[in-house]
Amino acid sequence: MSDIASDDMGPWLSEEELELVRRKVPMLYVDVVPVRVGENGTLEAVGLLLRARPEGTITRELVSGRVLFQETVRQALVRHLDKDLGPLALPQLPVSPVPYAIGQYFPTPGEHYLDPRQHAVSLAYIVPVAGDCSPSNDTLELSWFTPREVVTPEITGDMSEGHADLVRRALAHLGRLP
Amino acid sequence: MSDIASDDMGPWLSEEELELVRRKVPMLYVDVVPVRVGENGTLEAVGLLLRARPEGTITRELVSGRVLFQETVRQALVRHLDKDLGPLALPQLPVSPVPYAIGQYFPTPGEHYLDPRQHAVSLAYIVPVAGDCSPSNDTLELSWFTPREVVTPEITGDMSEGHADLVRRALAHLGRLP
Amino acid sequence: MSDIASDDMGPWLSEEELELVRRKVPMLYVDVVPVRVGENGTLEAVGLLLRARPEGTITRELVSGRVLFQETVRQALVRHLDKDLGPLALPQLPVSPVPYAIGQYFPTPGEHYLDPRQHAVSLAYIVPVAGDCSPSNDTLELSWFTPREVVTPEITGDMSEGHADLVRRALAHLGRLP
Amino acid sequence: MSDIASDDMGPWLSEEELELVRRKVPMLYVDVVPVRVGENGTLEAVGLLLRARPEGTITRELVSGRVLFQETVRQALVRHLDKDLGPLALPQLPVSPVPYAIGQYFPTPGEHYLDPRQHAVSLAYIVPVAGDCSPSNDTLELSWFTPREVVTPEITGDMSEGHADLVRRALAHLGRLP
Repeated sequence: MSDIASDDMGPWLSEEELELVRRKVPMLYVDVVPVRVGENGTLEAVGLLLRARPEGTITRELVSGRVLFQETVRQALVRHLDKDLGPLALPQLPVSPVPYAIGQYFPTPGEHYLDPRQHAVSLAYIVPVAGDCSPSNDTLELSWFTPREVVTPEITGDMSEGHADLVRRALAHLGRLP
Repeated sequence: MSDIASDDMGPWLSEEELELVRRKVPMLYVDVVPVRVGENGTLEAVGLLLRARPEGTITRELVSGRVLFQETVRQALVRHLDKDLGPLALPQLPVSPVPYAIGQYFPTPGEHYLDPRQHAVSLAYIVPVAGDCSPSNDTLELSWFTPREVVTPEITGDMSEGHADLVRRALAHLGRLP
Repeated sequence: MSDIASDDMGPWLSEEELELVRRKVPMLYVDVVPVRVGENGTLEAVGLLLRARPEGTITRELVSGRVLFQETVRQALVRHLDKDLGPLALPQLPVSPVPYAIGQYFPTPGEHYLDPRQHAVSLAYIVPVAGDCSPSNDTLELSWFTPREVVTPEITGDMSEGHADLVRRALAHLGRLP
Repeated sequence: MSDIASDDMGPWLSEEELELVRRKVPMLYVDVVPVRVGENGTLEAVGLLLRARPEGTITRELVSGRVLFQETVRQALVRHLDKDLGPLALPQLPVSPVPYAIGQYFPTPGEHYLDPRQHAVSLAYIVPVAGDCSPSNDTLELSWFTPREVVTPEITGDMSEGHADLVRRALAHLGRLP
């Protein structure tokens, strides 16, 4: 086991290490609901990533990812927003670290969100995005939806139950649940 | 009394009407803590208005003011920020209408904040300001202080007890209480 | 006007005074979502008051009412809960004065909640109730609904749009939106 | 490594496994500020655990501990409150899972809280305790302090910097920072 526990390892885990840790402890995540706001901060649209899955289906997702070892929550937010929305997105990161919601994902179905890979707990934030978004990697595009559109079955049907619920909780927090 | 209750009156009250209403009901206010934030949303400085008082003393204050009849909380925030910080301040208004704190001001000393004029309840917000501030009217200047400076007796000594407490609660909410 | 502005007046307003003030300033309210919780704080049911209206219809409502002059928000909460749920309800009042939502009611239809009587802004709280509720006065009963029931059209159809939305925002805040 | 990754392992980690995981990912914690409240929910006192450290010194601490694999945040709160305050403490668990603050502990000194053992992120809650507390195990006693007492150097000097800050942030959130 010495190869795994070596002191000079960075925050990145090998696939094998990640598999191991995932069976031992809850993983800490951040979930971000990207939004477009008007001049005075009123909500105009909610952004969702469109991703192609290996099995050929598509899925719509929030900006989401792990908090790494020795990384602050804020650094994790910056990293995932940059990775998923590109370097010109101009996200307005929250001044306060207090999330609007906590997401709890469990590997087996039940009362909480489902994530077959792991037990994860996410800190969820609403982040206004002012610039141009250019999704990268495995993301096909970032699409914007009005508060009314984003909760329709056409859109939520392409989302995981957890992400769809986090979007509705975000709209509720903003006083804009249709 | 018909002159006061006339239907065509706007949201603005005469001095006499304001005096009357102030003895009848709590007045609804907004209090704003203007802040400068770094690229990633980290708090850098807190802004306070420097005002000259009629009696020759000076006072440091938050952006603060009444919510008018038929005005939304957001409209009141925009109006007071524009009035106190000028048209080029580029405030990032909160997406969520939920305040980080409630301020309760009573006309007589006690456990709550003191406002000799009235019983007022304020919704308090933290608002990042990205542009140039040009205070107007009776405001001498807007000064920026680090989180450490803004809670020193030198600064809080020029503030009302209520505003000084709202600043400390804002720092606590941001995880930056020195 | 001296009869109205006399110094020895209590917090209670005459009908005439209330009418006057309602045309001048936003009225401050508290809205309370009463809930039953399990042993560990999990949400079990949401309580709604059933009221008979003068015109013969019924309506389901939250615990709601004005904050009076010289009254703290907490005192207003205690008073309205006592009035609407009776003296044995054992409400667990929030330790924090920060509301989970702000309700904005306007006298004319639009984007915000409607209250034909006035412009009102409410601080909304979720309050667990542990004891026996005995509604008084014009209240027929207090009924408890599961999170799933309380958002069905059968129930929300008997509520004002504002109260129905505050219930859904409460469920979202608790992570229990069906 | 098969002995560690075996499927039938429970949520508890061996010392060796815990050491390993602590070098790989941030650990998820809950921090609880136990409070005594008056009849109407007003804050009366803050509770701190008094612990004897192996090296002979004492320390004052919040109720605090890890969230285990497959355990909900609520279950972790119940477990740690029961362990630290005893079975008769009658804690009123929060209805909402949204914490009032996020604590970030890093193994090396810097801007964040210090925890030499690990990188940990805690969800922090304020929990009213109505019953009798009987600390167990390595805890000498649970002591109650007024809001004014609990922030004095006499008390905070026996606390970690992180816990002392979380107490002050809790008081600020409750509007009771002295």
